[in-house]
Amino acid sequence: MNQVYNFSAGPAMLPAEVLRRAEQELCNWHSLGTSVMEISHRSKEFVGVAAEAEKDLRDLLSIPENYKVLFCHGGARGQFSALPQNLLGDKSTADYIVSGYWSESAAKEAEKYCTPNVIDIRTEINGIKGVKPMREWALNNDAAYVHYCPNETIEGIGIFEEPDFGDDKIVIADYSSTILSAPIDVSRYGVIYAGAQKNIGPAGITVVIIREDLLGKAHKHTPSILDYTVQAQYDSMYNTPPTFAWYLSGMVFKWLKEQGGLQEISKRNHAKAEHLYRAIDESKLYINQVAPQNRSIMNVPFQLANPALDGKFLEEAYARGLHALKGHKVAGGARASIYNAMPYEGVKALVEFMADFERRNA
Amino acid sequence: MNQVYNFSAGPAMLPAEVLRRAEQELCNWHSLGTSVMEISHRSKEFVGVAAEAEKDLRDLLSIPENYKVLFCHGGARGQFSALPQNLLGDKSTADYIVSGYWSESAAKEAEKYCTPNVIDIRTEINGIKGVKPMREWALNNDAAYVHYCPNETIEGIGIFEEPDFGDDKIVIADYSSTILSAPIDVSRYGVIYAGAQKNIGPAGITVVIIREDLLGKAHKHTPSILDYTVQAQYDSMYNTPPTFAWYLSGMVFKWLKEQGGLQEISKRNHAKAEHLYRAIDESKLYINQVAPQNRSIMNVPFQLANPALDGKFLEEAYARGLHALKGHKVAGGARASIYNAMPYEGVKALVEFMADFERRNA
Repeated sequence: MNQVYNFSAGPAMLPAEVLRRAEQELCNWHSLGTSVMEISHRSKEFVGVAAEAEKDLRDLLSIPENYKVLFCHGGARGQFSALPQNLLGDKSTADYIVSGYWSESAAKEAEKYCTPNVIDIRTEINGIKGVKPMREWALNNDAAYVHYCPNETIEGIGIFEEPDFGDDKIVIADYSSTILSAPIDVSRYGVIYAGAQKNIGPAGITVVIIREDLLGKAHKHTPSILDYTVQAQYDSMYNTPPTFAWYLSGMVFKWLKEQGGLQEISKRNHAKAEHLYRAIDESKLYINQVAPQNRSIMNVPFQLANPALDGKFLEEAYARGLHALKGHKVAGGARASIYNAMPYEGVKALVEFMADFERRNA
Repeated sequence: MNQVYNFSAGPAMLPAEVLRRAEQELCNWHSLGTSVMEISHRSKEFVGVAAEAEKDLRDLLSIPENYKVLFCHGGARGQFSALPQNLLGDKSTADYIVSGYWSESAAKEAEKYCTPNVIDIRTEINGIKGVKPMREWALNNDAAYVHYCPNETIEGIGIFEEPDFGDDKIVIADYSSTILSAPIDVSRYGVIYAGAQKNIGPAGITVVIIREDLLGKAHKHTPSILDYTVQAQYDSMYNTPPTFAWYLSGMVFKWLKEQGGLQEISKRNHAKAEHLYRAIDESKLYINQVAPQNRSIMNVPFQLANPALDGKFLEEAYARGLHALKGHKVAGGARASIYNAMPYEGVKALVEFMADFERRNA
């Protein structure tokens, strides 16, 4: 079989080395004679897995000591309702920055708990899409916090400015599709959260990094599994956690350290993205409509100038081992998600195929 | 390495055949060149996995057509808050039968949303623990539903009566530790739910079987990920589901069918439990304090007459490959969880060790 490169937006490609190691020890982990997924989350062995995963994540992101790291059930959508329930306190509004599908979904879920101050920052000039810079975001002083999404996976729109709205503003960011792709100055945020299935591990676990002073304010109706205070108090084991996903996430953290950490991975991610965007911009067939300063490093959507070729493009790509390039149903066209686990060779193979396809279909 | 038998209460042992197959295809599922955990939940391949898992579960439990099957995030504790939020409607109370730790936890979570009518059915006569029969349960006519737990994993207490409280009473049962261990007459219930990590698959996924007419009543504050109506509408894919756990659960369903279905597995489970309880009752060292009619078929807790031997017992058992026998911290002593995946040979090995240990420590 030929080498396969999987451009799925999520659940996404995992590092090949991590999968191979998981395969080797799937039935007999640490010579225990059982799988890691068969042992109690409260066993000393699994508590060790959990502690090591947290330590490695803290090392990678230089997470300050006054932040708790939680490993939660439920994906980012679970956090969409956890956030207002945990952080509104006695406030009745929060700022929700809308830059695309996911940040809009977060605002919509928040409507169940407050009247969000929805700030649509999307711009479109001559068909080129982008977002307004942070200084133009019309924040509300009465808002409990400001929520935004630094990377919209569907639209391929990234926000690369670092937030700086004064010490009193609690900043919450949905880093589902960019966490661990580059260093983050965690101290600028009240909460950073991320569903695992793009840059962390398999679907079914979500990382929440929360400043300790924000705990203790959950509304009394908050489900225990979404209550950050309860999760922090019980080291994310108030209920049985998704242990296998946690274990695999920990292996990905170790892999990232072996690669040289986030500075190094960020360099590689930029090299991959630049290679792909350059190929798109230099072609006559492929079009990316995002303003250069907002182009996502992780998700590269592109349209074919002749949409009648979409199906043929995707089929031929698949036949060459370039999988899951279909654009999100909301956006159409094609999309290449090139998270940490995607090697440069994968992007190179895609670019070569794209050029070849263009030649043959000029 | 010697054969290991893992008596963990959960996450628990999985069928060895299932794990071996998962190992074989972990890095290259269905010759796709990727792992099943790396593909989109919306791909036709994964939609196929999901549909087959549902079909096999429906076959195994003979689930009537007017029931939806949901595969949710979050474990049974998530359902503890989902249930009142989805099913209270305009009622302000629900009956919560308390037979042990887990049913009591469900009642406690319900306090966030209503004033539960807590009905403690536990009995203790001469140190022997049991529960009152269903005809003595003091149900409230104004309750939105009655919730109970047919098997308490910590106390090892089972309720084997089938519920029959009249057509108007909505019965909800937490089957986390007994689902698929024997046939269930699903039509007697409004909702059956079960965290996977005992008899279904790995931790991180929860099965909810709900009668369709109960959908559509969720409180407007219900988080989307806990809203049964939303989950049903989107075939459990409103948010990215825990795909690998879902896939493994499906393999366990297939394995159960290969074993001959639930009648056959129930026979085996009874044979295992009877062998172990007989050994306990015939010994002078081991004590199970549960009334015979309420003895769990899945979780067999036992105390040592001389608790000073607890540590030695557990250490020696472990050295013989009999793992995770320590009792829950609430109960102390020892506990053998003997779910579907535990072969008769495992129970036999345990009983032999127990007899040997007793001889040596008489």
